Amino acid sequence: MDQTADATVRRRHDFSRLINPRAVAVVGASNDLTRIGGQPLKLLTEYGYQGKVYPVNPKYPEIKGLKCYPDLASVPKPCDVALVALSAQHVIGVIEQCGAAGIPFAIVLSAGFSEIGAGGAALQDKLAAVARASGVRIIGPNCLGALNLKDNVRNGFGGTLQLRTLIPGPFAMVTQSGGFGFGIVAIAAYYGIGFNYAISTGNEADISMLDLTEHFLESREVEGVVMFMEGVTDGRRLIAIGERALELGKPIPVWKVGNTEIGRQAAASHTARMTTGYELFQAAFRRGGFVEVRDSDDLLDALKVFRARRLPRGNRVGVITLSGGAGVLLADRCVEFGLQLPPLSAATASMLREIVVAFASVANPVDATANGYNDNFATYNRVIATVLADPGIDQVIARSPRGSAATVWSRSFIEVARASDKPILMNWPTSPDDNAEVMQYLEQNGVPCILAPGRTVRALAALNEFAQKKRAFEKQPRHVAQRLTAKQTLELPQAAGTLGEHRSKRILAQYGIPAVREALLSAATVNGLEHAPLPFPLAVKIESPDLPHKTEAGAVRLGVRDLAAMKAAAEDMLASVQSYKPGARIDGILVQEMAAGLEVIVGAVNDPVFGPVVAFGLGGVHTELLQDLTHGFAPFDTAAAKEMIFQIKGSALLAGFRGQPALDIDALADTLSRVSLLIADHAGRIAEIDINPLFVRAAGLGVVAADALIVLK
Amino acid sequence: MDQTADATVRRRHDFSRLINPRAVAVVGASNDLTRIGGQPLKLLTEYGYQGKVYPVNPKYPEIKGLKCYPDLASVPKPCDVALVALSAQHVIGVIEQCGAAGIPFAIVLSAGFSEIGAGGAALQDKLAAVARASGVRIIGPNCLGALNLKDNVRNGFGGTLQLRTLIPGPFAMVTQSGGFGFGIVAIAAYYGIGFNYAISTGNEADISMLDLTEHFLESREVEGVVMFMEGVTDGRRLIAIGERALELGKPIPVWKVGNTEIGRQAAASHTARMTTGYELFQAAFRRGGFVEVRDSDDLLDALKVFRARRLPRGNRVGVITLSGGAGVLLADRCVEFGLQLPPLSAATASMLREIVVAFASVANPVDATANGYNDNFATYNRVIATVLADPGIDQVIARSPRGSAATVWSRSFIEVARASDKPILMNWPTSPDDNAEVMQYLEQNGVPCILAPGRTVRALAALNEFAQKKRAFEKQPRHVAQRLTAKQTLELPQAAGTLGEHRSKRILAQYGIPAVREALLSAATVNGLEHAPLPFPLAVKIESPDLPHKTEAGAVRLGVRDLAAMKAAAEDMLASVQSYKPGARIDGILVQEMAAGLEVIVGAVNDPVFGPVVAFGLGGVHTELLQDLTHGFAPFDTAAAKEMIFQIKGSALLAGFRGQPALDIDALADTLSRVSLLIADHAGRIAEIDINPLFVRAAGLGVVAADALIVLK
Repeated sequence: MDQTADATVRRRHDFSRLINPRAVAVVGASNDLTRIGGQPLKLLTEYGYQGKVYPVNPKYPEIKGLKCYPDLASVPKPCDVALVALSAQHVIGVIEQCGAAGIPFAIVLSAGFSEIGAGGAALQDKLAAVARASGVRIIGPNCLGALNLKDNVRNGFGGTLQLRTLIPGPFAMVTQSGGFGFGIVAIAAYYGIGFNYAISTGNEADISMLDLTEHFLESREVEGVVMFMEGVTDGRRLIAIGERALELGKPIPVWKVGNTEIGRQAAASHTARMTTGYELFQAAFRRGGFVEVRDSDDLLDALKVFRARRLPRGNRVGVITLSGGAGVLLADRCVEFGLQLPPLSAATASMLREIVVAFASVANPVDATANGYNDNFATYNRVIATVLADPGIDQVIARSPRGSAATVWSRSFIEVARASDKPILMNWPTSPDDNAEVMQYLEQNGVPCILAPGRTVRALAALNEFAQKKRAFEKQPRHVAQRLTAKQTLELPQAAGTLGEHRSKRILAQYGIPAVREALLSAATVNGLEHAPLPFPLAVKIESPDLPHKTEAGAVRLGVRDLAAMKAAAEDMLASVQSYKPGARIDGILVQEMAAGLEVIVGAVNDPVFGPVVAFGLGGVHTELLQDLTHGFAPFDTAAAKEMIFQIKGSALLAGFRGQPALDIDALADTLSRVSLLIADHAGRIAEIDINPLFVRAAGLGVVAADALIVLK
Repeated sequence: MDQTADATVRRRHDFSRLINPRAVAVVGASNDLTRIGGQPLKLLTEYGYQGKVYPVNPKYPEIKGLKCYPDLASVPKPCDVALVALSAQHVIGVIEQCGAAGIPFAIVLSAGFSEIGAGGAALQDKLAAVARASGVRIIGPNCLGALNLKDNVRNGFGGTLQLRTLIPGPFAMVTQSGGFGFGIVAIAAYYGIGFNYAISTGNEADISMLDLTEHFLESREVEGVVMFMEGVTDGRRLIAIGERALELGKPIPVWKVGNTEIGRQAAASHTARMTTGYELFQAAFRRGGFVEVRDSDDLLDALKVFRARRLPRGNRVGVITLSGGAGVLLADRCVEFGLQLPPLSAATASMLREIVVAFASVANPVDATANGYNDNFATYNRVIATVLADPGIDQVIARSPRGSAATVWSRSFIEVARASDKPILMNWPTSPDDNAEVMQYLEQNGVPCILAPGRTVRALAALNEFAQKKRAFEKQPRHVAQRLTAKQTLELPQAAGTLGEHRSKRILAQYGIPAVREALLSAATVNGLEHAPLPFPLAVKIESPDLPHKTEAGAVRLGVRDLAAMKAAAEDMLASVQSYKPGARIDGILVQEMAAGLEVIVGAVNDPVFGPVVAFGLGGVHTELLQDLTHGFAPFDTAAAKEMIFQIKGSALLAGFRGQPALDIDALADTLSRVSLLIADHAGRIAEIDINPLFVRAAGLGVVAADALIVLK
């Protein structure tokens, strides 16, 4: 590797000059400042940008008083970014020119690439290849550009970038939909929430949203990164970024769309982006420092509470109001969002009793009653301070007072808030223009105010979710899969396809996954048997790599009670298979013990985005009808497996429901972990593992696979 | 009944004078206009009220330039309302004076009644009795008063009533929490949503929120009534009001709080109000013209869409955007909220193809792309008009354009909107102050604009829920229970308590509810049996009114296979019962056929708020662990029973899950209806019916109760 290449590699991982360039060349500059090639000239000259701007267009000597250059070669050095506003077919040439001119970054606004179909996709592939060869990193194509409000760099086009209301702040936004994501930046500004940076990644021919999220997470100017995504291609890197976010204590509010069939089709039609596997994205979000949001309010509220930079030590909430009705509804929502409202300590309750009027309630929620209006809320402040000081309370939601006395109150309240390091969230009880200056004062002093009571609680729940994950991560940074077994060498056929049940189970056995006792016999052997190879009752099946769905093929008999029935069953099934699938390969008759226990399903696939993944759910209707299943990224250890087990709603059945004995959760976790090792070790060959059912017996008695299937690729 | 009493009765049902009084006497008037007795004088004289105001206080000759009266007897006639701001112990005397002076209504602001405990509750009972005796109807006590913004009557006190920003409009609010509910009126005004009326009902010693909701529903000045409630005492009247709302086409957005254990405790502590049985309230809301809301945004968004007065004919939505990402997320949310996004008709698609640029998508969601910005959105309007005209589309969600061209666009867009009678909802893509005048213009012309995309879809879903219920109600106004059986006379013991299983089933049989074949035999008879009374295998149980939980008592043996085992089982069980509950009455040995099928649970109770109610769910974990159950108000017919059946998530199991045969849903519905008749006919004696399990067999083979229990009161 020569020095130039080395420099290229270094440059490729530092986006500082992309985001805060010393100079920008606008390629395809237009003197019509409303056009895509004209807007950036206005945005880079009228909004405070301190760097140089070089219009590039051979047609003009100057535009907007700026010297215009005929090509990138003639642009002065240093120039860090080429902003490309030409039509698609000219873009590749420009990237080559960037390489030649030593311009390390290009932002390609131009559309007409993968989003328009196969022809565009080919052009985009070529663009990516040229960018790599030229040592140029590119944003886009088909994007709205990059916004750096901290340094007044509005490097792109569109309605949002022209708004003078946008404000810098501690957040960064990385969005696959420029129109939508930038709109959120505008809405956030209206609510006083600033973004230092926002980048629209478009088709992501080169730089992906993961690259930028990683960059922003490490930035001292960023306290949290918002991702608006349809999908990413590297799920494992998404997971690693989530863990890094926990390590840094910086949340990643993430909004993923394209999660329904119709949404997916729409996403596929407007970009070439695949958006399958929402449940795997959710599993990734749950695991790392992500906070999933589903609407712009969720997002803005979450940013408000994260901006206050206070993380709760636990999920116990004190609710304080001046009206009983509000307390009731806030309490309801806290419970519904999984937050706790413990009783206040006896000491706190007795202190409160001395402060409040007799008909107030000192339970949690505390109803200080409208009596607060009688003393300019001095009492109310003492109530808040007292609840905050309760060691059994991790955070407080309070309803803000109103009326003219609220201004006086707010000053002393901020003293109370400063004296504590616990999160405090105000639910605003009236319209935003009623006492607006009080709200502004509170927010400027680090106390978030949220209008709707349900939204207030939801935002607090988002904060608690992040804090809880951070605490868990600090306790045990990540699940380093402690291997229960070494990597095994498997004897697999060369061809892709399904393995028979018996053969599948032998592979499971190599990883220590228990199955029912069974014997694989030839049809002739079965016919000549004088004693059963295993005690009755037995299951009798046809072993064949060509019958993944044995039941439908009539190739399964359960509860066979004697030798004669076994022989008859074998004969019947062979005939049935012959008519179901003539020519199906028959590897023998599989005779196996009947098993019992709680039926669960363990599956594994090698997902194109997330790699090897294990799915777990209860059998029967639970998984298929009620969609009560969970996913783990392989490999994982038994601790992670237990977390998975307790994520499903039906897990109560395993823990001993309605006086039933507890089942063998340890053995189940052991098996889940072993399946994760098997798929992870052999992801190159194994496309799919399906153990259905796995029977879970009473604690101490283990688990046993009654049927299994491995699909090779 | 003499004429006076008759007049009283008539007056009691017309609240017009309460809401728009010719004169108000303020009892306990204060010359400190910040106090509770002073605020109303300011509110009734400085906000445009046209009626007379009579301060009542023997201490002053005049207050605020108004002649002050020593008592109600001296107040000029007519006076329609006494606003009472005295301390609790003086209120009863004032109500008597109202009666004597012919003042038909009192609004009692005073606190210190049922909300403070037993003493206050007694005072409140006395207050109610005096009101009845005096022919005076009262609002409160412990309320904030009544607000009539249409006629400028601000008859109460508190921060909200003093706001000059409040606006009249087509809605009414009835709230049990004055502080919270009036706060919502203030927030609504900020978003341009007006309320002609808002009443805080407080402790509801006399006039309840149901009385007022009924009144407002019938008012020509009201298009919808918002209820904020902790609970009501007459569930059946709530249901009737919901049906009337459907008949009138006026929605009742309802916000119920106190639904969790902690929320209930909080509600009980700040009023004496009981708030049990949220699932029954939800069943009532689902049935009538209610739209349940859970946050202030939900509520305000719903009011925005209802105000437009367009109901969709079906739930098919066309989504139209200028950006693919927004289309994807709106599509996702529509699907999640149960709305349909059908493909557009071939004719519509081909018309759109001619309008939009080549890379636009004419699927649903339609992505018209940012190209709309190139023609001042003239094309975008044609797209909207074309989709609106598609006969397969019932309503449209569109993203609003932005930028300077949006103003021009909005004029022609309103023409498009006017040319259709389908609901049109705009999702605003930027901050509320970006193009604020466009939003205002759209809203003033009947097109609601909602900021957050998820909220936009949720509001449309609320509209669709109401429209769907209205359509169903018009098709069949209500489920007049077509009786499957006449009322039966039951032979019941005089005492309260549990009936044995056999006896319970005989009562079920009187209503045509099938049970397994069984025989009740004495222990001696069983011991001497030479042949079984029914074919084996059998279930053997102890019949006893003292063993409601037979399994725990060791009083059940299933799958008994022969006579010897039956005799042994009977003997064992008698011993077991003797040790479990010495002295338990034994009515014999119950020998019954084993049954099979899908296990379901049918229960019935006589709820204190909602009266006789039938609950239905699948057996096992479905009901207990997954809470997948539903409720019907008894009596109901088989059509209503089928609706219940399909409300549970597990109903797919009944319809034939995974290739299983469909089960006998007709027979199940028949039985649910018969249980509803039984509990409704005998609600005076039957406290509880529990059929668990009821086995549902394949279609045509009926259902059969394997165990049953009736509890008498």
